[in-house]
Amino acid sequence: MKKSPLRSASRSPLLLAVLALAGAAGGARAQSSVTIYGTVDAGVQRTTHVANDATQITRRDNNKLGFRGVEDLGSGLKALFQLEIRYDPDTGALENNTRPLFQGQSRVGLQGNFGTLRLGRGLTAFQESVMAFEPWSGLPNVAGYQTNLQVAGYTSDPLSPAGNSANRFSNAVFYNTPVWNGFQVNATVATKEANGGPAVIGKGTTTAPQYAANANASNNPYSVSATYTNGPFAAMLAAERNAVEAKIWSVAASFKPIPDLKLMASFQRQDQSHTQFINTDTDAWVLGANWTVGVGKVLLGYGQKKPDGVLKTKQASVGYEYSLSPRTYLYLDLSHKRTPFVVTARSDVTQKHYALGVHHNF
Amino acid sequence: MKKSPLRSASRSPLLLAVLALAGAAGGARAQSSVTIYGTVDAGVQRTTHVANDATQITRRDNNKLGFRGVEDLGSGLKALFQLEIRYDPDTGALENNTRPLFQGQSRVGLQGNFGTLRLGRGLTAFQESVMAFEPWSGLPNVAGYQTNLQVAGYTSDPLSPAGNSANRFSNAVFYNTPVWNGFQVNATVATKEANGGPAVIGKGTTTAPQYAANANASNNPYSVSATYTNGPFAAMLAAERNAVEAKIWSVAASFKPIPDLKLMASFQRQDQSHTQFINTDTDAWVLGANWTVGVGKVLLGYGQKKPDGVLKTKQASVGYEYSLSPRTYLYLDLSHKRTPFVVTARSDVTQKHYALGVHHNF
Amino acid sequence: MKKSPLRSASRSPLLLAVLALAGAAGGARAQSSVTIYGTVDAGVQRTTHVANDATQITRRDNNKLGFRGVEDLGSGLKALFQLEIRYDPDTGALENNTRPLFQGQSRVGLQGNFGTLRLGRGLTAFQESVMAFEPWSGLPNVAGYQTNLQVAGYTSDPLSPAGNSANRFSNAVFYNTPVWNGFQVNATVATKEANGGPAVIGKGTTTAPQYAANANASNNPYSVSATYTNGPFAAMLAAERNAVEAKIWSVAASFKPIPDLKLMASFQRQDQSHTQFINTDTDAWVLGANWTVGVGKVLLGYGQKKPDGVLKTKQASVGYEYSLSPRTYLYLDLSHKRTPFVVTARSDVTQKHYALGVHHNF
Repeated sequence: MKKSPLRSASRSPLLLAVLALAGAAGGARAQSSVTIYGTVDAGVQRTTHVANDATQITRRDNNKLGFRGVEDLGSGLKALFQLEIRYDPDTGALENNTRPLFQGQSRVGLQGNFGTLRLGRGLTAFQESVMAFEPWSGLPNVAGYQTNLQVAGYTSDPLSPAGNSANRFSNAVFYNTPVWNGFQVNATVATKEANGGPAVIGKGTTTAPQYAANANASNNPYSVSATYTNGPFAAMLAAERNAVEAKIWSVAASFKPIPDLKLMASFQRQDQSHTQFINTDTDAWVLGANWTVGVGKVLLGYGQKKPDGVLKTKQASVGYEYSLSPRTYLYLDLSHKRTPFVVTARSDVTQKHYALGVHHNF
Repeated sequence: MKKSPLRSASRSPLLLAVLALAGAAGGARAQSSVTIYGTVDAGVQRTTHVANDATQITRRDNNKLGFRGVEDLGSGLKALFQLEIRYDPDTGALENNTRPLFQGQSRVGLQGNFGTLRLGRGLTAFQESVMAFEPWSGLPNVAGYQTNLQVAGYTSDPLSPAGNSANRFSNAVFYNTPVWNGFQVNATVATKEANGGPAVIGKGTTTAPQYAANANASNNPYSVSATYTNGPFAAMLAAERNAVEAKIWSVAASFKPIPDLKLMASFQRQDQSHTQFINTDTDAWVLGANWTVGVGKVLLGYGQKKPDGVLKTKQASVGYEYSLSPRTYLYLDLSHKRTPFVVTARSDVTQKHYALGVHHNF
Repeated sequence: MKKSPLRSASRSPLLLAVLALAGAAGGARAQSSVTIYGTVDAGVQRTTHVANDATQITRRDNNKLGFRGVEDLGSGLKALFQLEIRYDPDTGALENNTRPLFQGQSRVGLQGNFGTLRLGRGLTAFQESVMAFEPWSGLPNVAGYQTNLQVAGYTSDPLSPAGNSANRFSNAVFYNTPVWNGFQVNATVATKEANGGPAVIGKGTTTAPQYAANANASNNPYSVSATYTNGPFAAMLAAERNAVEAKIWSVAASFKPIPDLKLMASFQRQDQSHTQFINTDTDAWVLGANWTVGVGKVLLGYGQKKPDGVLKTKQASVGYEYSLSPRTYLYLDLSHKRTPFVVTARSDVTQKHYALGVHHNF
């Protein structure tokens, strides 16, 4: 077996002075395989009826700085890796000040005729697939529907540290089949490993919570989605179970009557009967449209969420994206949301949201 | 509107196996727009009369690892972003172990005939402009004058977490006019957003501090500087108000009698009457020179700071930078400072400082 | 002295709008000097008799994302820097969730006829040299011998924050001589600087620990190794003293009877008499082989550790690496370890370890 200069360099401790140079040379060759990419999105926003309802400089999209590469191993086999930093552009801190360095994802794996197999941390199959059926494309924003409505308030990773992502599995295997006549199956399975999370009282008590701090999952979390694309039509069917055995299933579809107009709809049902005595089911549905007009794109959405025994949430949003280039656009969002419980403890309020900003990919 | 492969890839969840490849290809195209840059500066230093006055390996300049890009949008319009990590080279940790990942700056914006408009976090207009009139170019070092004397001990961001930068605004809009006959105006305005800072007792009490922990600014922080350059002469006039309404104004000028010699002077007055009952005003002035001799550069400075009712601080420093290349130099600093209050509680001490190290830009 | 556009840009605060562009141009030139490199390694592992003995997705090797560069200064002189992030691929977090951003290393220095001189943080001379004589090449893995056996349980940096690396000096000077007839000397010396570490009780008491929290080193830590290479034969002699004056010396050698087979052996003795009353000495030895067979490599090892007054540790491991390319391989490890004290408090257990995964360099 021939080893690359890089690998030899990183392992051989002799001749350190020589290594510094050899290592650099090896690196120069490896350089070609790394792509740096990212997103910086910042704007002025205001949301009423939240803890800090002052005008803010903040983000609408996730802000990313990522590193990825593909190595051709021959015979149709490829090695893949991707590492993605997430940050808040208004303070320069890691997302929410608490999340891991590579909050976005950290994965490595192989791709071939058999599909794609990766290990590490990333979006679950369900969370990644469902975003195509949300009019804000899954942006974690007040105007969008993904976090609160589209996934029915469901959290993929309840046993990770507080403030961590709600859409990802750590310690997981990610598998995607090849696409066969427009049909694909994606599956994510995580280990039961403890991951430093807080206690979940659930059906227990404060002194004997159902899941103690740093608890292992009681069952292997999994997520599976099947997607189908046929010309202007696309559909998804998905199911997921998290570390505290909350379950969700989802069905979604989209249709393009003309190339510039995409209509979409999704329905979700979450079942929290493993950790709750009452109000265990939450249903949600979202309707949306994306309409491209010249260099502009209009986003429209309406959705409802109905947990058992709780007032309905109803949200209507409209957005506009004005492209300055394929990589850069300005945006404007307006949103109106009737929501039953908010941090200021009013029992039923109408939350208004305004956003204006710039979104830049690199 | 045509979307780039990158943007499409990051949004479309179907056909995941295909995406992994398409994403990589999109990234390859985006790659051209990212520049990696940075500074590594490490040396041996000793400062007497400080908490840890042992000989240290430490930095003289800020250590940076940054990512930035400029996209040409046509018609003289450009999109800009910059993300800058700061770290301590002696331990490999983020600056002061407490600062945000992109402590240096995280900004995105547009540049055109109208000037430059950016959003995010960065140096305030005053803090960025005043450094040109300091003989150590604003290096945050014991030998330099920026932190303690040149800005009269003023802090731009008192409501950010303890240990955070004293020179920056988070949650801000940054605007620079075009340069017009050597004249430019720079303005920074921040929102009143709370940012997780500690309580500031100010004119309150321990139980009822003037600014509670995680308080909003009582007024929008702003910073404005006007700069003028005409051949060998440059000047600045600036004013700033921070989140606890401490105010500062500053006037500074520099002159080059010969191309290799730059003489500079600055005066500052800080007003802390919003949070202090006594000793509200602090005046400071700094004189300096930079003299280039062959591949060497001599730095000279003298300055004083005089808070009301407190002993004067007096500092004299001399430095030498020996360039090995346009990107790399060795440095030697000597500094002598009479300072009224130090951590060891002596009432008036003369602090000595020695530094020898290497500074490398990449 | 001519300054580069980059350096001028980073220092001159006037004409900010112009700078944004000039800086970008300067950066483009600097770009050529930065190499991005790294390792992503993730697999499925199980280790019995540990706190969390569930099947895990975790790493076998250190996962790295690094930035380095070499600048040619002329006359055989070079400037070098290297910054290396370490992370856990299964969660995307920094290594152990607690370590500094550039846990791997952060160093800058010069290289010339005189050898290589660097400042900052990195592996000590002993820790870097000894890995060539360990059959898993110093991988910090249960199957490997480096952490527990090969260095006799010794820790290079006991006064850094809890959870920090055991193999590195912060605040250090690193010197490597040129290679002379196959012979090289490497030396690392650290300052006595306090570095935020926890208290070490040692020969003190809980209330008066021998080293208080955030204590300075009682003596300058140092590490020195001498290495010799002559065709198929290599050898090392090394000694080190850490911040709490634990000492270690080590002798090691390797021999290649045929190019595809490397045999290796090392012996170490640690002396903790400065901080312990009893069981001050720990001896350890490791034998190993690396055998390349086609695109595969077989790793074999056996070793023992014998602290005074404590049961012996005995470990046997076998591994197999299957190369898919010079940058990517699959691995399989099996290990069997009789160990006296484990977290579950059994007095003598046989710990079994299995690992299967993928290792990718970029």
